[in-house]
Amino acid sequence: MAQQAKTAITPTRDEDYPEWYQQVIKAADLAENSPVRGCMVIKPWGYAIWENIQADLDRRFKETGHKNAYFPLFIPVSYLQKEAEHVDGFAKECAVVTHSRLEADADGKLQPAGKLEEPLIVRPTSETIIGELFAKWIKSYRDLPLLINQWANVVRWEMRTRLFLRTAEFLWQEGHTAHATAEEALGETRQMLEVYADFAENFMAMPVITGEKTAAERFPGADATYAIEAMMQDRKALQAGTSHFLGQNFAKSSGIKYLSAEGKEEFAWTTSWGVSTRLVGGLIMTHSDDDGLVLPPRIAPAHVVIIPFTPKEETRAEVIDYCLDLKQALEAQTYMGAPVKVEFDDRDMRGGEKAWNWIKKGIPVRVEVGPRDIQAGNVMVGRRDRAPKDKQSLGKDKFVGNIASLLDEMQDGMLAKAKKFRKEHTREITTEAEFVEFFTPKNQKEPEIHGGFASMGFCCEPELEDQISKQYKVTVRCIPNASLKEEVACVFTGKPGKRVIFAKSY
Amino acid sequence: MAQQAKTAITPTRDEDYPEWYQQVIKAADLAENSPVRGCMVIKPWGYAIWENIQADLDRRFKETGHKNAYFPLFIPVSYLQKEAEHVDGFAKECAVVTHSRLEADADGKLQPAGKLEEPLIVRPTSETIIGELFAKWIKSYRDLPLLINQWANVVRWEMRTRLFLRTAEFLWQEGHTAHATAEEALGETRQMLEVYADFAENFMAMPVITGEKTAAERFPGADATYAIEAMMQDRKALQAGTSHFLGQNFAKSSGIKYLSAEGKEEFAWTTSWGVSTRLVGGLIMTHSDDDGLVLPPRIAPAHVVIIPFTPKEETRAEVIDYCLDLKQALEAQTYMGAPVKVEFDDRDMRGGEKAWNWIKKGIPVRVEVGPRDIQAGNVMVGRRDRAPKDKQSLGKDKFVGNIASLLDEMQDGMLAKAKKFRKEHTREITTEAEFVEFFTPKNQKEPEIHGGFASMGFCCEPELEDQISKQYKVTVRCIPNASLKEEVACVFTGKPGKRVIFAKSY
Repeated sequence: MAQQAKTAITPTRDEDYPEWYQQVIKAADLAENSPVRGCMVIKPWGYAIWENIQADLDRRFKETGHKNAYFPLFIPVSYLQKEAEHVDGFAKECAVVTHSRLEADADGKLQPAGKLEEPLIVRPTSETIIGELFAKWIKSYRDLPLLINQWANVVRWEMRTRLFLRTAEFLWQEGHTAHATAEEALGETRQMLEVYADFAENFMAMPVITGEKTAAERFPGADATYAIEAMMQDRKALQAGTSHFLGQNFAKSSGIKYLSAEGKEEFAWTTSWGVSTRLVGGLIMTHSDDDGLVLPPRIAPAHVVIIPFTPKEETRAEVIDYCLDLKQALEAQTYMGAPVKVEFDDRDMRGGEKAWNWIKKGIPVRVEVGPRDIQAGNVMVGRRDRAPKDKQSLGKDKFVGNIASLLDEMQDGMLAKAKKFRKEHTREITTEAEFVEFFTPKNQKEPEIHGGFASMGFCCEPELEDQISKQYKVTVRCIPNASLKEEVACVFTGKPGKRVIFAKSY
Repeated sequence: MAQQAKTAITPTRDEDYPEWYQQVIKAADLAENSPVRGCMVIKPWGYAIWENIQADLDRRFKETGHKNAYFPLFIPVSYLQKEAEHVDGFAKECAVVTHSRLEADADGKLQPAGKLEEPLIVRPTSETIIGELFAKWIKSYRDLPLLINQWANVVRWEMRTRLFLRTAEFLWQEGHTAHATAEEALGETRQMLEVYADFAENFMAMPVITGEKTAAERFPGADATYAIEAMMQDRKALQAGTSHFLGQNFAKSSGIKYLSAEGKEEFAWTTSWGVSTRLVGGLIMTHSDDDGLVLPPRIAPAHVVIIPFTPKEETRAEVIDYCLDLKQALEAQTYMGAPVKVEFDDRDMRGGEKAWNWIKKGIPVRVEVGPRDIQAGNVMVGRRDRAPKDKQSLGKDKFVGNIASLLDEMQDGMLAKAKKFRKEHTREITTEAEFVEFFTPKNQKEPEIHGGFASMGFCCEPELEDQISKQYKVTVRCIPNASLKEEVACVFTGKPGKRVIFAKSY
């Protein structure tokens, strides 16, 4: 231990991966558990990341013809009950509102009063309530397609929660669309999956596999569920977004009907698709290291922090002025079509302490300015994708002029690194013995990090899938779109199968 | 009736003002009542208005140093109970969550199950839960001021609801800040009131009076409440935003303490301030007319609609091309620092029907293009602030080049018109008889529209205020900041008083 380089986060990934994750969040001040069981508080630095996710996705949704709207937080229990699979999927864990006020009892303690005629649940997802309204809005084929998105909070009463990855309340967007034909609805389902995949790779630098889920992992009430799956640094899969082809199931249970051009009454075909604050969890586990959060420049709330080093009082004013000039010069530069975002950290605190603070927060570029830098017209630059001590002295003007390309280079590097990691931990599996070996920890000290993505043939029989999942805690993450037409013998049964990705997962 | 010009909205404002309001919302497709009692659905055109409100306010909040965060939807009942006045204000109408799942009974009907140890309420406002977290986050004077804002949904179980104005669930922002001194906290309270006032006037073209509330209308738990008050077209006041100086009340009930520079433990001083989707109701009632919604350009989801008139099939392609060229040319123009937003309405529908559709939606500028316009290089322009038939033929290039100044002119005109209206219906009142006369309907057919703002001296005694409110259904809207130092004799008692605004209100 004594020889090891000291890291800002304790424990390291290798020492205790789940605890490392919590400590990265704490050190970056992204979020914390609230006093309300299972509900998190998203703190400003974490929320700013979510705002950037929202802004970029929202633009993509609007470019593909969707409009935002807002639907009620509450869903009458009778609505949920209309779709049989759906209710099975969500009734087990939902917040139930039963009363409309509080009244003090004899001891002055507030008790629920004003019992509702019908209990309401807090939406776990909005297919049923939106279906009810779509049924009202859609009369004729002219009203189709109807392309709606909602940014909202939802609640699922999870028993075991983890910040961002699984919380009782979370923030998300849910797209809901209705179409005249199955083909169109399937096209929409696939289009939105591609929107998610492109966003994950090009905005978050998080490579994903797009593919279809097997029946076992399908959304309750869907005919088909597609997902994007990313590999975390413990080699587990994170389902980072889903897009569902709902067939006519919800159209039939909610009565979404339209009069066709031929004057015939038809049920519509619907889809839904969503991503959530879980993406922030994926972001953390894709890029962060043992010194804390690492943010791809495109998603970072700020790109550059300027830290003044003012050892002597007499040079203090000069250093501050130089920093403010630098800030202005950087903000005049453009990155991704907007001004470069710069923080100037003039807190009353040692410069080194500030630098570590920003390293843990994952800011892409640190610029340190001291009296000697000013004399030389230089700045000392640290990149978050390099070691903390690996800093470079650069001419101020050159640094400013190159900032956008530096950020681009870092973004590209992070995506390449994540892709390389995934490739290194993806294995072609051809026998059950290989499968078992791949998913068995080799090192007793590191039970959390092993395995990866097993690319292999599978017959997709539900009973077998269930058995494997129980025996090995490994599930089919998806049938990748890229190899959809491939026929591969099932590793377990030898029967004709599809190529699938098996992995442990969040 | 036969002689009257036909209007797009039935009834007109004069005929039935409350019903006119509902019909404007329906005709513009802004929102509708949902099947969940008291909860509204905000439809795309209405939600786009809310998005514009959010974007502009959010920029203003960030410019004044605030950061966004997100806090839990649920509040344990015990938290609410900590502040005595606060619980009195909100316990009477709140959604109470008592169970964590649903289970089918013998008849297959789902019933609440998994009773919670402590009931939770859905946040009606977040002072108590945020106070709990502020207490954790704030240790020293270095942590102050803490300037946080949250965009969220809240629930108050209102008995009588009206779209946008009063709904059980609504969307809002709530700012929450903590400061080291009373002066700073009061400064923040007033600053945010001014932010709201400037936003209302310059973005929504809705003039407002800023002032302090009397004790009767204070936020439960506040030391002082300030508000912006706008006059609607029925001359009633709408409280459009509030900013509260909470003193040390919530700091004491939640334990928000800090160590001062002198090493002494002190309670912080807190504020909270909010505006909600109610602003959309204010927008509607400030500007709309008997043909429907009228949108100030700065808040409009789109500025211009282009409507092709294609009477003959052979000129159709030419008209469409001309329209698309025009769209591109308009979008190359800048308004308020961003491209002009243009809709091209190529629906399969008569041009006149389309035009009325957009008039009812309040779009600022309509451009109609037919074969004859093309020959002359012209466009036919209708402005929403003029009569529907008052259209003007303009050279295409000239129209395009002037679009930003036309929109500015319309925005300014709408604010001036609203100010004039308010001035016309504000009366200096010096006797009780005048007061009674002012607030008594003159016309039996129009009971909804009468009175206005009564500017007058008032002693502000709570019993008297309560009596007047019960007898005349008229309340003190505020003690205007503008006349805060004026001493005026009370119209009712002759005692020394403040200048206040009395009005009927929403």
